[in-house]
Amino acid sequence: MPRKLRWGMVGGGESSQIGGAHRIGAGLDGEYRFAAGALDINPERGRNYAMRMGIAASRSYGDWRQMLERESRLATSERLDLVTVATPNATHYEIAKSFLEAGFDVLCEKPLTTDLESAEDLVETARRADRILAVNYGYSGYPMVRHARAMVEAGDLGGIRVVVAEFAHGSHAAAADADNPRVRWRYDPLQAGASSALADTGLHAIHMACFVTGRKVSRVSADFASCVEGRELEDDAAVALRFAGGEVGRIWASAIAVGQQHGLTLRAFGARGGLRWSQEQPNQLFWTPLGEATRVLERGDASLSPAAARASRITVGHVEGMLGAFGNIYLDLAEILRARADGRDPDPLATGYPTGEDGLHTLAVIDAAVRSARKDGTWVDV
Amino acid sequence: MPRKLRWGMVGGGESSQIGGAHRIGAGLDGEYRFAAGALDINPERGRNYAMRMGIAASRSYGDWRQMLERESRLATSERLDLVTVATPNATHYEIAKSFLEAGFDVLCEKPLTTDLESAEDLVETARRADRILAVNYGYSGYPMVRHARAMVEAGDLGGIRVVVAEFAHGSHAAAADADNPRVRWRYDPLQAGASSALADTGLHAIHMACFVTGRKVSRVSADFASCVEGRELEDDAAVALRFAGGEVGRIWASAIAVGQQHGLTLRAFGARGGLRWSQEQPNQLFWTPLGEATRVLERGDASLSPAAARASRITVGHVEGMLGAFGNIYLDLAEILRARADGRDPDPLATGYPTGEDGLHTLAVIDAAVRSARKDGTWVDV
Amino acid sequence: MPRKLRWGMVGGGESSQIGGAHRIGAGLDGEYRFAAGALDINPERGRNYAMRMGIAASRSYGDWRQMLERESRLATSERLDLVTVATPNATHYEIAKSFLEAGFDVLCEKPLTTDLESAEDLVETARRADRILAVNYGYSGYPMVRHARAMVEAGDLGGIRVVVAEFAHGSHAAAADADNPRVRWRYDPLQAGASSALADTGLHAIHMACFVTGRKVSRVSADFASCVEGRELEDDAAVALRFAGGEVGRIWASAIAVGQQHGLTLRAFGARGGLRWSQEQPNQLFWTPLGEATRVLERGDASLSPAAARASRITVGHVEGMLGAFGNIYLDLAEILRARADGRDPDPLATGYPTGEDGLHTLAVIDAAVRSARKDGTWVDV
Amino acid sequence: MPRKLRWGMVGGGESSQIGGAHRIGAGLDGEYRFAAGALDINPERGRNYAMRMGIAASRSYGDWRQMLERESRLATSERLDLVTVATPNATHYEIAKSFLEAGFDVLCEKPLTTDLESAEDLVETARRADRILAVNYGYSGYPMVRHARAMVEAGDLGGIRVVVAEFAHGSHAAAADADNPRVRWRYDPLQAGASSALADTGLHAIHMACFVTGRKVSRVSADFASCVEGRELEDDAAVALRFAGGEVGRIWASAIAVGQQHGLTLRAFGARGGLRWSQEQPNQLFWTPLGEATRVLERGDASLSPAAARASRITVGHVEGMLGAFGNIYLDLAEILRARADGRDPDPLATGYPTGEDGLHTLAVIDAAVRSARKDGTWVDV
Repeated sequence: MPRKLRWGMVGGGESSQIGGAHRIGAGLDGEYRFAAGALDINPERGRNYAMRMGIAASRSYGDWRQMLERESRLATSERLDLVTVATPNATHYEIAKSFLEAGFDVLCEKPLTTDLESAEDLVETARRADRILAVNYGYSGYPMVRHARAMVEAGDLGGIRVVVAEFAHGSHAAAADADNPRVRWRYDPLQAGASSALADTGLHAIHMACFVTGRKVSRVSADFASCVEGRELEDDAAVALRFAGGEVGRIWASAIAVGQQHGLTLRAFGARGGLRWSQEQPNQLFWTPLGEATRVLERGDASLSPAAARASRITVGHVEGMLGAFGNIYLDLAEILRARADGRDPDPLATGYPTGEDGLHTLAVIDAAVRSARKDGTWVDV
Repeated sequence: MPRKLRWGMVGGGESSQIGGAHRIGAGLDGEYRFAAGALDINPERGRNYAMRMGIAASRSYGDWRQMLERESRLATSERLDLVTVATPNATHYEIAKSFLEAGFDVLCEKPLTTDLESAEDLVETARRADRILAVNYGYSGYPMVRHARAMVEAGDLGGIRVVVAEFAHGSHAAAADADNPRVRWRYDPLQAGASSALADTGLHAIHMACFVTGRKVSRVSADFASCVEGRELEDDAAVALRFAGGEVGRIWASAIAVGQQHGLTLRAFGARGGLRWSQEQPNQLFWTPLGEATRVLERGDASLSPAAARASRITVGHVEGMLGAFGNIYLDLAEILRARADGRDPDPLATGYPTGEDGLHTLAVIDAAVRSARKDGTWVDV
Repeated sequence: MPRKLRWGMVGGGESSQIGGAHRIGAGLDGEYRFAAGALDINPERGRNYAMRMGIAASRSYGDWRQMLERESRLATSERLDLVTVATPNATHYEIAKSFLEAGFDVLCEKPLTTDLESAEDLVETARRADRILAVNYGYSGYPMVRHARAMVEAGDLGGIRVVVAEFAHGSHAAAADADNPRVRWRYDPLQAGASSALADTGLHAIHMACFVTGRKVSRVSADFASCVEGRELEDDAAVALRFAGGEVGRIWASAIAVGQQHGLTLRAFGARGGLRWSQEQPNQLFWTPLGEATRVLERGDASLSPAAARASRITVGHVEGMLGAFGNIYLDLAEILRARADGRDPDPLATGYPTGEDGLHTLAVIDAAVRSARKDGTWVDV
Repeated sequence: MPRKLRWGMVGGGESSQIGGAHRIGAGLDGEYRFAAGALDINPERGRNYAMRMGIAASRSYGDWRQMLERESRLATSERLDLVTVATPNATHYEIAKSFLEAGFDVLCEKPLTTDLESAEDLVETARRADRILAVNYGYSGYPMVRHARAMVEAGDLGGIRVVVAEFAHGSHAAAADADNPRVRWRYDPLQAGASSALADTGLHAIHMACFVTGRKVSRVSADFASCVEGRELEDDAAVALRFAGGEVGRIWASAIAVGQQHGLTLRAFGARGGLRWSQEQPNQLFWTPLGEATRVLERGDASLSPAAARASRITVGHVEGMLGAFGNIYLDLAEILRARADGRDPDPLATGYPTGEDGLHTLAVIDAAVRSARKDGTWVDV
């Protein structure tokens, strides 16, 4: 049997939501063994949790620097194949950069960094080190999102005209949240940077629009609003944009949309047809060829693209969810890592995972949107 | 029994879609008798069709001027109670103004006029003549839209924060439409004015946002795009806006959204809850009180507001559609007309029909959006 | 212009729900004039209401016998073209029979009668008198139901295998309803006959199954349950059945299904595909060709059958509801009546309205179901 | 850290769908280590696949008897904590019985056995051996199914009146399937036993009805139909039933319902409210308190029952699917196993997994349904 890949994580400890999703996602297909971790800002809590997760005591670290130092010295046969960085946003840059420079392949939680310059530097670092830098835009792992991209690529939609992407939820709608420390920091520029709703959830919508259409954004006009009193950063944002080929984009992000549980949706309209997908019903993709009836495409159906088939684990009619989507990012990376080790080309279907460049591009769009919003909605180049 | 109101129509002849909807809507509750009409640009065809619709030969006119002249001379006992103007947009102003000045009450199809100045003059004309000038934003007649407005008015949503309204369909998506004369004129500034998608369907979205929230728009930032080659006017438009109280609005209008059959939806988010309504499923209103589960409110349910109850004709669980919504505008006007004749105050529930002022305001928003789109998205006051 | 048809109604007065629906339905397309009526069991109230509805005083009757007598003596030029019977179920037989024998064409509310023998006699009476006897299974008037029938007829589904029809609502679920006089009579055999839920709403499900597939039921096995204490008749019923060609049917009717507002749905599965329709979303028909993706067929779409097109009044994407469906029954009958008057064959598309024979067949199925339920579910021939 | 539980599987090899779901489900929460397996009828293929799955060569068996023999002799410290039986149905009995008698705890795929007597014996065997015998009705692991059961238990629905459960798909609708060996055996009594559609998918519907309501079925009336030519066993079945407390049940199972991808749905109606759940949208539960608006309950919402919370891994708004549901059965068993090892009472929330008794009861219902169907739908006691 092929050996299990050795996987490590920085952050993602007991109190972290996303850490659990990474562990499950990485473990889903039996490709990885959880081999090392510095899982918590509190060293003892982190070590204990790592050991409870089955990591050897010697590789259960209290601190990411210690982990970096010791793991760097391990023999090839023990060396980590992939390190996931799932720490608070502001620390992504330093940690990811350190591991890349030490020769590790890295999957970084989104956002890649909290400012554009460091994101550029990180991408450049990965390029110089010739290491993988992936960014966990996990929704891109959904089978029907992969299928949507395959359809666009195959020309089924014809030339893309308009892409509409939303990520609008109501989790920060309570006025009392202005005082809730778990929410408050998100609207404080000192802690959260120059954007809140757009940078937190809107970036998924932006990435999804780029991922499915295979296009980059070239310029934007943005409107930010702080609707709950006392917030300095936006809790609602709309962005009009143009892709490089002149295609039109409409983005809406909100944290105060009461009644929307999650709210990530994508619609893409081309000269030959239109697509519609929603994260809350991810196993269906609604496809309307121009002038014909809408079709309900089902995950798992035999007629779907190889890209969708590869990302599915169970038969049509059942439901695959977010953990499967996360798992698909890890599955892609496993193939990339194994192919490199084997000196062969990876399965082309595995090369579509979101890269550091994608993470950088999304941040550049948000950076441009911030500048536009500050300049009264003027169009700003990305 | 109360006498039937005498109703006349200009335009809305055999080849007109909207004419049939007016006839059915006006006839739905037995309040009106179709008494006079100049229904077609072709005099003979118009007279014949009017007679086939049951109008007396003497009041089946070949021409609106003739209709105006003769109807103006009729005795009070025969005089039209209401004149609907359902002619091509560019003629609304002259016809509506003429009838208003002759003392008739007028229901004008949307858009009220094709430019702001004439709309202002028309509203002023109605004011001077002390006549009704209503504009047929028919979607405001849906029972659950009335209920949504009642909920906002009652404070159920708390302070409104964000309103998201869309009217995006795919009817003009075929590239061949660039040459289709029935579509082409809509994208020709000489025939359609300064805006196409926003002025054609987007104005319903704008009106709906104003109608439900009871607010006026104060400033806008717009982005227009012409996606199908050869079009001078926009077939896709996004507008960011602020209402007078600082509330935020997001509007999207499109004519190239393949797969969307109609596409009018409204979402309103306040400090205490959120609402969601779609024209394609008009008998349900989705209501989420802050921190609670979403409720599915059903047209016809005994617990709904009097405003919704008054606009419903059949029991809960059945479906009422667009013709009922149209009928509700006519029902409102019937009550206003009868109350005036009786020298009494009308039922307050009947006073919410869309007025000339509403039509003017919507056009002013579109005018501002056109100016903003031309100025690179700069915010423009309405 | 063709003259308006003269229409009369027995029952359907002010306190009647269904009466309003008939008036609107009959008036929808301008085919009928409401010319005579005996609308209420209370003579004075009935006459007053008829006059308020615009009927001449001389034809506003206090009593159906009086109406029958006087209307029978009118000259051909004044004679009623169609009489609707919308009185309590137990009186349908006597009234409809009397009008048929006097030479009137009759549209009878459902159920045709309250027992099988009288239904047979009524159908025979109509045959002898050579008059129309239609029964108001109004849901058959929905455009997409007409389209479903056209698809089956055209062989799109191949041989029908299984039809699943439900009509299950929760309107009689409150235990207190056992004492509510407006509900109690429905579960009293002396007032309601031998079946309640199945005879009240289930018969629509049965008719729908027959209407869409063009098949008759040949035998049934039924299970009746009285779930709310104190009820003698069933408030929940399931029927397994076979159509004449051996096709399988599954019927469920309930009055205690809390959360279902209306609950009429139809699914039909054949060798070449499957269909799904729901009264609460009547403008869509879900069609799955064997081995392909499900299509969402939309009312108003240009590609639909002539039968669907004829039953539609407004463009695709808008919503048509129950009043339009009712109107389609009246529209069919108008064509039949006019064709007979003109001595020509009627438009074949108008010949699909539910007939007395259909009403009789549905009652025969229910009669057989009652017998089966009493015999422990044994299969019983219809 | 608590040690990982040692898990083994019989069957579930490379060509098995369900095997993958078990491996992922068992691995989801890090509770189990895949320690031993006899995964394939082909010894070499089975051993190779087991090793590829990370099982030691010494515990990668070519044959379940060999596995049983060797694993039985291992020291307590190496002994398997749980053995999953995922072999063809006809072999469940012998394999599960052998492992139970050797003192292993067993999770058996459904159906427990292919005849009632062996199921009774298996349950009795587990009782005598004092071992766990669980049966993998995986849909009972969905968080909102757990919540539905908690609501019924808490009395939210009041007394249950009617339960409607369906599992109807279209996977065997192609007439050509009559000759397809992968389908044909399912309709051959020699290979599949006395029932096909009902025993294959209908048993999930029956179990779901029992699981959510906490009731046992006492008698049934069934109708079986073989719709595709050449089939001896039913491909469509309807069952009317009564639970022990007199509550009513309606079951529909089909394999020829073209257009239904999966088709498992449950509706439960009580004196105080109604519930609706569908496997294809498993993260929502629709709850209608009597006389109030329907609520959309969302998986992950903080207000849900502890039973639902325990079965959820990610936050509200995201999608959890079938693999999570499978994982919840394994999670329950892990708690039961650990509690027994620790000599403490297990978390009561973990005691709701489907037991051998549940599997036996479902088979008894199907057995009774077969007898009823053969006796013309006569009611038969379970």
